[in-house]
Amino acid sequence: MTEKTVFHLPEGENDYGKRVFRNAANLLADTTIDSAVAIVVNGGGLDHVRADAPTADRVRQLLDDGVEVCVCRNTLEGADSDAGDLVDGARLVSSAMAELTRKQDDGYAYIRP
Amino acid sequence: MTEKTVFHLPEGENDYGKRVFRNAANLLADTTIDSAVAIVVNGGGLDHVRADAPTADRVRQLLDDGVEVCVCRNTLEGADSDAGDLVDGARLVSSAMAELTRKQDDGYAYIRP
Amino acid sequence: MTEKTVFHLPEGENDYGKRVFRNAANLLADTTIDSAVAIVVNGGGLDHVRADAPTADRVRQLLDDGVEVCVCRNTLEGADSDAGDLVDGARLVSSAMAELTRKQDDGYAYIRP
Repeated sequence: MTEKTVFHLPEGENDYGKRVFRNAANLLADTTIDSAVAIVVNGGGLDHVRADAPTADRVRQLLDDGVEVCVCRNTLEGADSDAGDLVDGARLVSSAMAELTRKQDDGYAYIRP
Repeated sequence: MTEKTVFHLPEGENDYGKRVFRNAANLLADTTIDSAVAIVVNGGGLDHVRADAPTADRVRQLLDDGVEVCVCRNTLEGADSDAGDLVDGARLVSSAMAELTRKQDDGYAYIRP
Repeated sequence: MTEKTVFHLPEGENDYGKRVFRNAANLLADTTIDSAVAIVVNGGGLDHVRADAPTADRVRQLLDDGVEVCVCRNTLEGADSDAGDLVDGARLVSSAMAELTRKQDDGYAYIRP
């Protein structure tokens, strides 16, 4: 059976971003489970998914591996940024809170690394 | 369909309280979803829901908007406080951990901002 | 009805470990609920479940009280440690992320203290 997991990334510290991406990669690498993976980004987490972020290549790799990356529109607008500032493939959502609610309602397990 | 979301507020830092209340308000303001919202408070989070807290008016507004605010009795007693010290309308629960468990068992999505 | 609760312990700070163990004990002590309790440990959290950790006796007590303590194999190997370094009774899991996903899929409520 395929499982589903959503990671929540609301913190801007460099180490926190790396932690979330490493956790997601570890889940993909775990051969005992086959889980669809999403990452929902808001607040300070925005800085980890910008096209020019130090972690941008890490995010691109996760996208290539099938991970869904959802970015909060409220956060983006509050930062005077737009979708063009993000890693290609990141998807805008109306709000991180709504997306996290919908995903859990859809059977995703929630992990706050 | 109405969804349900519970926010967990266990931290005492001013910025963290504001973050949780802003996240809850953003969810209420998101017109793409209609979600019942609860906030479960324990540990340092207690300081954000006191009647004389800097955030008290923010909490009152959320209560007026239909948000349920649940405060951990263990935390309250450990702080030598009682219900009279809280914003009117906050509800005591036997323990934050039991309430978070019950709410998720009742279909609430969990968010730790 | 018996409920189920999984605590996530990914932080190494002493106060954080104590918080998680206190939260778990509070849930066990709450007579209004009968919940099976698990703790999933990864990252810095490893230091709280070592056999020589300051919190080791606290962990042993929780194990005696029926709490399941699951430790991430990735974390253990990354720290050049092995199962023999852990409190007796702790159980290795393939990855914390897979275990947190499975437990939630199995009906556990997730709490990130």
